[in-house]
Amino acid sequence: MKWDLLTTSQLSTKEIQGIILSASGFASGKTWQPKEKLFISNLFYEPSTRTKSSFEMAERKLGLEVIPFEVQTSSVLKGETLYDTVKTLEAIGTDAIVIRHSADSYFSELEKGIRIPIINAGDGKGHHPTQSLLDLMTIQQEFGSFTGLTVTIIGDILHSRVARSNADALVRLGATVIFSGPEDWVDQNQLPAGSCYMSVDEAVELADVVMLLRVQHERHDGKLLFDNNEYHRNYGLTLERERLMKKGSIILHPAPVNRGVEIADELVESPKSRIFKQMENGVYIRMAVLKRALENRNGGMKNDNVDQKWQIAY
Amino acid sequence: MKWDLLTTSQLSTKEIQGIILSASGFASGKTWQPKEKLFISNLFYEPSTRTKSSFEMAERKLGLEVIPFEVQTSSVLKGETLYDTVKTLEAIGTDAIVIRHSADSYFSELEKGIRIPIINAGDGKGHHPTQSLLDLMTIQQEFGSFTGLTVTIIGDILHSRVARSNADALVRLGATVIFSGPEDWVDQNQLPAGSCYMSVDEAVELADVVMLLRVQHERHDGKLLFDNNEYHRNYGLTLERERLMKKGSIILHPAPVNRGVEIADELVESPKSRIFKQMENGVYIRMAVLKRALENRNGGMKNDNVDQKWQIAY
Amino acid sequence: MKWDLLTTSQLSTKEIQGIILSASGFASGKTWQPKEKLFISNLFYEPSTRTKSSFEMAERKLGLEVIPFEVQTSSVLKGETLYDTVKTLEAIGTDAIVIRHSADSYFSELEKGIRIPIINAGDGKGHHPTQSLLDLMTIQQEFGSFTGLTVTIIGDILHSRVARSNADALVRLGATVIFSGPEDWVDQNQLPAGSCYMSVDEAVELADVVMLLRVQHERHDGKLLFDNNEYHRNYGLTLERERLMKKGSIILHPAPVNRGVEIADELVESPKSRIFKQMENGVYIRMAVLKRALENRNGGMKNDNVDQKWQIAY
Repeated sequence: MKWDLLTTSQLSTKEIQGIILSASGFASGKTWQPKEKLFISNLFYEPSTRTKSSFEMAERKLGLEVIPFEVQTSSVLKGETLYDTVKTLEAIGTDAIVIRHSADSYFSELEKGIRIPIINAGDGKGHHPTQSLLDLMTIQQEFGSFTGLTVTIIGDILHSRVARSNADALVRLGATVIFSGPEDWVDQNQLPAGSCYMSVDEAVELADVVMLLRVQHERHDGKLLFDNNEYHRNYGLTLERERLMKKGSIILHPAPVNRGVEIADELVESPKSRIFKQMENGVYIRMAVLKRALENRNGGMKNDNVDQKWQIAY
Repeated sequence: MKWDLLTTSQLSTKEIQGIILSASGFASGKTWQPKEKLFISNLFYEPSTRTKSSFEMAERKLGLEVIPFEVQTSSVLKGETLYDTVKTLEAIGTDAIVIRHSADSYFSELEKGIRIPIINAGDGKGHHPTQSLLDLMTIQQEFGSFTGLTVTIIGDILHSRVARSNADALVRLGATVIFSGPEDWVDQNQLPAGSCYMSVDEAVELADVVMLLRVQHERHDGKLLFDNNEYHRNYGLTLERERLMKKGSIILHPAPVNRGVEIADELVESPKSRIFKQMENGVYIRMAVLKRALENRNGGMKNDNVDQKWQIAY
Repeated sequence: MKWDLLTTSQLSTKEIQGIILSASGFASGKTWQPKEKLFISNLFYEPSTRTKSSFEMAERKLGLEVIPFEVQTSSVLKGETLYDTVKTLEAIGTDAIVIRHSADSYFSELEKGIRIPIINAGDGKGHHPTQSLLDLMTIQQEFGSFTGLTVTIIGDILHSRVARSNADALVRLGATVIFSGPEDWVDQNQLPAGSCYMSVDEAVELADVVMLLRVQHERHDGKLLFDNNEYHRNYGLTLERERLMKKGSIILHPAPVNRGVEIADELVESPKSRIFKQMENGVYIRMAVLKRALENRNGGMKNDNVDQKWQIAY
């Protein structure tokens, strides 16, 4: 069995809790290192600052050796498929691979033939499980439990990699989820079980957690449905709306933030914001996910120069 | 004396055997690390997945420190010559440099003035000695010896960095070499001594080793001489042709593979294929080549702040 | 207090001497490593070979973990500000950041809110303090002291990041500075105190140190004020002019060199040249600057998971 992490929905609530627990251990100073030198590679086919550098940080904290891979200077330019690129990295001895790719469910073409664990760092409009897990960790850190919490998710639900999988996990963990934002960006006929749609002011007022989604200009093919000021006024967390929030409630955003669009500039580093805390927790979640993949992998994979018929005296 | 590795033909058969033996040691779990921290840099002026990541893996397995270098963000953009770039890396303390460059024999401009070893990772249409060595290692691993073996090389001989140097080394080591493929891609007046040209079906039938060459679309300036299906039918290793192969014979390809062109998709990971085995062996060959360059370098090169006239009390 | 290094002028002569002394220790084989694993990131928004690879080398010599960051594949493409990028790297646990950016004084937007040290690796036409320091170290190494030395700086003074800050530091340290080069590239009304302007032949004849500046074609928007031969003949260090230089005098150039423009090709590696020596010293200076930033940082910054209200049993 391989210990891939492809989607949040493949994880049971017990597994989610286990990963958060392991990450919290890292947050409080615990360490873990594999017994032998292990090698990892990060294949980012889309631009990324925080996810990539967060994985890089997590890998170095675990003492892993990182084999650099830049799509822009790779044989991908010669038309090599994702499968052959991953198979190549496996062949040279990589022990696990982190992938971000613009194709939804890119990992389905890797199911057969690849023996090393794949960790999904984002697939198209599909999934982004380590982002979901770091959101969940930040909520649990704040409230201790999900039972009875109200989490409001505002924004571009249709294009969000995490909105639906977060909602699904939150509901399974005992929270109530409210979606809000532009009506065109929420398919009200397809809301996950246990969630509902509400106007922004109401949704903010009821929330223990206000989770803002990034307006992904780069995914709308340049078609602006709103100008930034209009979006901010109608759907953003303005200074006025923040005052509606409950005592003890918190603000999350996956970042990069469009300051003054999803959230007022002044609120990004305000007392209720856990935006940079999320980034910190992301490192611990990725350490936990990498540890899970690597400590459970098949121990017999190394030095299996098995086709070697002829033994060299050395 | 510097322990460059620039071409396969500069190596005696004894040296080739020595490198393969050292690599086989690494394949069976031997390790080597330099006594002090050593620094290396990989200058890839052309895209590459497997050669670059294979060197990166080899370097980390040897415990070397890798100084990253990306042509796209370097002073090469300001017009800096290869010589000055290499001289700069030498000046800051790099102990050896791996280079891939599109210019044939780029290394001739580095002969004077550069004191650290240069390892050629491919020069234009010229040489690719670590690829040759890993091909040879994979053959030796399979058959124990080269004497009496027949190796068939099929494809784009004219544009191939390894075809001619492989043929030369194989003949020196006691093998017979058959070239095959499109007649326009083989200069029959310039075949290396000990080799001949034959039709694909005959050449496949006689071979202990079928070595396929990549159709390098990117080197034909977009001029397609064949469509992919036609190439496959006429010169590729089809399922039918594979059935002509001898018992115990093997298939090699330097990759990236154009699946369905040089070789049928289904054969890439078939029992006779050693394609991913070659990639694995590539790491061991590069470890051996790096060890050879580094353990033999002039021990007096470090901390030679020799121009320093004035000694600081510290 | 943070131990940023933003400009040379912010450093007292005592601090300059301290950094050079520390760097000279590294040059003579001293080592220093932080007690815990520390993380650093190099943000280069402009192309660079020697500054970036010199920092990379210095970081590895100090045993730091380097988190790779490539502007071309980062969220900068999604419009993320420099502040948010730096804040992100801080949030994930980076201990210090090296930045090169095309905007003059880019660091002023980082003054508030960023707690980790920033090391300036070049800001627009502004400053390049580690280049200044390595120039000063190379001079001190040669002459033991700055008192009474004459340093001639020739070239593109207006566009040079180091000309004015070098002149300022040299004068404070007791040297005399002469500027020379095209009159249009020197603002004679704004010469730093203690410096003067002179014709090239006179300036070369009087100098203990001839410091050539790079003709920065890339900063002149393609408008060539001179052709290369004309520049060389009128303002470059030709073979003839080099013969005017005093016994014991030296040649400096920040590189990359335009061979045959600022300096005759044959002189780049001639006995008076310290151009590659400067590059070597750059590594030691950067080690000293990084050590200064890291050993003085607030020890309480690590593992401050302070917002954590709820303690996980582990």
